[in-house]
Amino acid sequence: MSEVLEKAKKAKEASYRLGIIPTAIKNNALDIMAKALELAEKDILEANSIDIEAAQKKNLSKALIDRLMMDGKTIDGIIEGLRTVRQLPDPVGRIIAKWRRPNGLQIIKERVPLGVIGIVYESRPNVTVDSAALCLKAGNAVILRGGSDAINSNMVLARLISESAEKAGIPSGAISLIETTDRDSVTEMLKLNKYIDVIIPRGGRGLIQHTIENSTIPVIETGEGNCHTFVEKTADLKKAVEIVINAKCQRPSVCNATEKLLIDEAIAKEFLPIVLKRLKDARVDVRGDEKARAIDPSIKAATEDDWKTEYLSLTIAVKVVSGIDEAIKHINTYGTKHSEAIITKDKAMAKMFTREVDAAAVYVNASTRFTDGGEFGFGAEIGISTQKLHARGPMGLNELTSYKYIIIGSGQVRE
Amino acid sequence: MSEVLEKAKKAKEASYRLGIIPTAIKNNALDIMAKALELAEKDILEANSIDIEAAQKKNLSKALIDRLMMDGKTIDGIIEGLRTVRQLPDPVGRIIAKWRRPNGLQIIKERVPLGVIGIVYESRPNVTVDSAALCLKAGNAVILRGGSDAINSNMVLARLISESAEKAGIPSGAISLIETTDRDSVTEMLKLNKYIDVIIPRGGRGLIQHTIENSTIPVIETGEGNCHTFVEKTADLKKAVEIVINAKCQRPSVCNATEKLLIDEAIAKEFLPIVLKRLKDARVDVRGDEKARAIDPSIKAATEDDWKTEYLSLTIAVKVVSGIDEAIKHINTYGTKHSEAIITKDKAMAKMFTREVDAAAVYVNASTRFTDGGEFGFGAEIGISTQKLHARGPMGLNELTSYKYIIIGSGQVRE
Repeated sequence: MSEVLEKAKKAKEASYRLGIIPTAIKNNALDIMAKALELAEKDILEANSIDIEAAQKKNLSKALIDRLMMDGKTIDGIIEGLRTVRQLPDPVGRIIAKWRRPNGLQIIKERVPLGVIGIVYESRPNVTVDSAALCLKAGNAVILRGGSDAINSNMVLARLISESAEKAGIPSGAISLIETTDRDSVTEMLKLNKYIDVIIPRGGRGLIQHTIENSTIPVIETGEGNCHTFVEKTADLKKAVEIVINAKCQRPSVCNATEKLLIDEAIAKEFLPIVLKRLKDARVDVRGDEKARAIDPSIKAATEDDWKTEYLSLTIAVKVVSGIDEAIKHINTYGTKHSEAIITKDKAMAKMFTREVDAAAVYVNASTRFTDGGEFGFGAEIGISTQKLHARGPMGLNELTSYKYIIIGSGQVRE
Repeated sequence: MSEVLEKAKKAKEASYRLGIIPTAIKNNALDIMAKALELAEKDILEANSIDIEAAQKKNLSKALIDRLMMDGKTIDGIIEGLRTVRQLPDPVGRIIAKWRRPNGLQIIKERVPLGVIGIVYESRPNVTVDSAALCLKAGNAVILRGGSDAINSNMVLARLISESAEKAGIPSGAISLIETTDRDSVTEMLKLNKYIDVIIPRGGRGLIQHTIENSTIPVIETGEGNCHTFVEKTADLKKAVEIVINAKCQRPSVCNATEKLLIDEAIAKEFLPIVLKRLKDARVDVRGDEKARAIDPSIKAATEDDWKTEYLSLTIAVKVVSGIDEAIKHINTYGTKHSEAIITKDKAMAKMFTREVDAAAVYVNASTRFTDGGEFGFGAEIGISTQKLHARGPMGLNELTSYKYIIIGSGQVRE
């Protein structure tokens, strides 16, 4: 039996027991994990340095190495994350609805875990612990398949947390890491719909696309954010500038950063120069359509590709639109259904925008950067769904559950 | 451009407008559809007779021809279905939750349509109208791909309902039928994740399996029901017999019919002869494991295959189990996560069963036949989900929606 199949079977087996384990045991497991990580800081950093060395030899990009690199602070952050999840209320067993039918049947709709969740991710070791903690708290078994460049770090982290979980009474196999790092192990995993209930890919477009195309397991598409901010003609331009700069520059490498600026042509001549100056001060590479370049010829020409691209860097493309209709149409054509914002003082425009834009999070007069489990008040999140099935937007513990119907009768039969 | 691609693009386009159309227009469309079907009864039956004739020439099974065949009563039933959906409350625009963050941002979680729903189904013409009505009421565009044997019936029905919808002001392309009936048109449809948001297959195992294996669009798996009834040792045996007979015989061809009977060995010698007599009176073909055959050697031997099979006919397999643990384990191994029942007087046993059995609907002292949108009080349903993502069990209008977050600010930026 392959490693993937064996671990998937064990995970399924474990999930039945895990689904009915008391909250106190899950919380205790999270406590023991946190302590274990604290004590093993040296081991973790040693394993990580092997990964870093290998990555440097392979000439991986600085951005990739940055994401892979761990230090005392990274580990503190991971431990902090465990403590946050520990504090969150356990969703399992909560009654969502309850009603009685005319024939006397009582129907109870109760929250239950999803079962076995597969996480496919790139070389960010913190995802190993963050994902496992969230899945565990929501009563799910988890199968982790991280990027090959982080394998040494992941193996130490996964061993520490799965051993800690077992010490607390969590069934063996509830948390497992796939150690085979060739592509075939991912493909094999994506076909095990008999054992795995959901796949959540966490990473770039390529990873997500590969998952969607190859999985027979239901997938929750996450994270791609080609987000727009539309400055409508009645906007408070001062606020608009601050929002655009924040949405673009505060953390450009993340999915909820704004990648495109749409400006109503009625105010473009006034607004573009102001925002351009600030964007240039922040060293943002600005591209634009013809109308934008007619106002400031120093802007590079945007290509069709620009409108589709999630830059994840200090780059923005500007389009001058004839009004809200063109803005909405552009967003619904090129957007990734993540986060979209309108800056306006006109309530009717705000309403039209929030109704007609098809995205997980639609903002009025605020930065797109708020699409985040923590900012929404969920405490923690496993990702941001950009699909409409199951969960949309930031996914916290509730979104890692399903429900079942329990029907209590007294001998009812159907006529 | 292929028929499928063209219709999918039009559906996506239509879905943006459809998502914000008032309830009154959708209800009016349902009214006009009902009237149009009433007036066109002759055309529908003529088209259906062409399908029936072709099916007879192809020597299709009686069961298939029965499902394909329409008469005045079938049409009345379809019209009745339209009227039921018309009466149901519109889920779109309903506020699911609303809260304010410490920074003043107001977050509103609002129900929205899924967008474009693809229905892939077999040769049951009533599904054409039923599915379209439910999708429409929940604000979704729908692409119907029915079985080739029903193509003439489906073309007439789809034309009548889509023309009626347009008369009411529903955007063109919101309801469309794929008229190309080769397998390639299904495969092409299943890859259009850019335009179709969800695929719901309605049909047998083969259809569902093909969909899961080939779709890049999120799929809601429906309908396969290898359902069990477990008679626990404290059961009221009189009630148990009535429930088993109802669950097996009242309508054996449907997914919520019981296919397997598990009997606690403590009562097997007493219960098996009673239930066997009634099953034989109802002409049920009974198979059993060794322990059951030791009690009554006239029972045919069940094979490993029997435990896995959804018979959809007057057949049942009986297994004598050592107790609730074996019953739960058997169900979680062979069940399809649809509907499972325990007959017991012991509340602790009932609780253990409902907690540990992994299924959409878990019954205590009632027939599995109640897993049905109508019986749950949903008014109508588009199918019974046997997966855990998005929706589980009977899917009514709410389950045909997603949600979006609307965030209202006053210039907030992230620090």
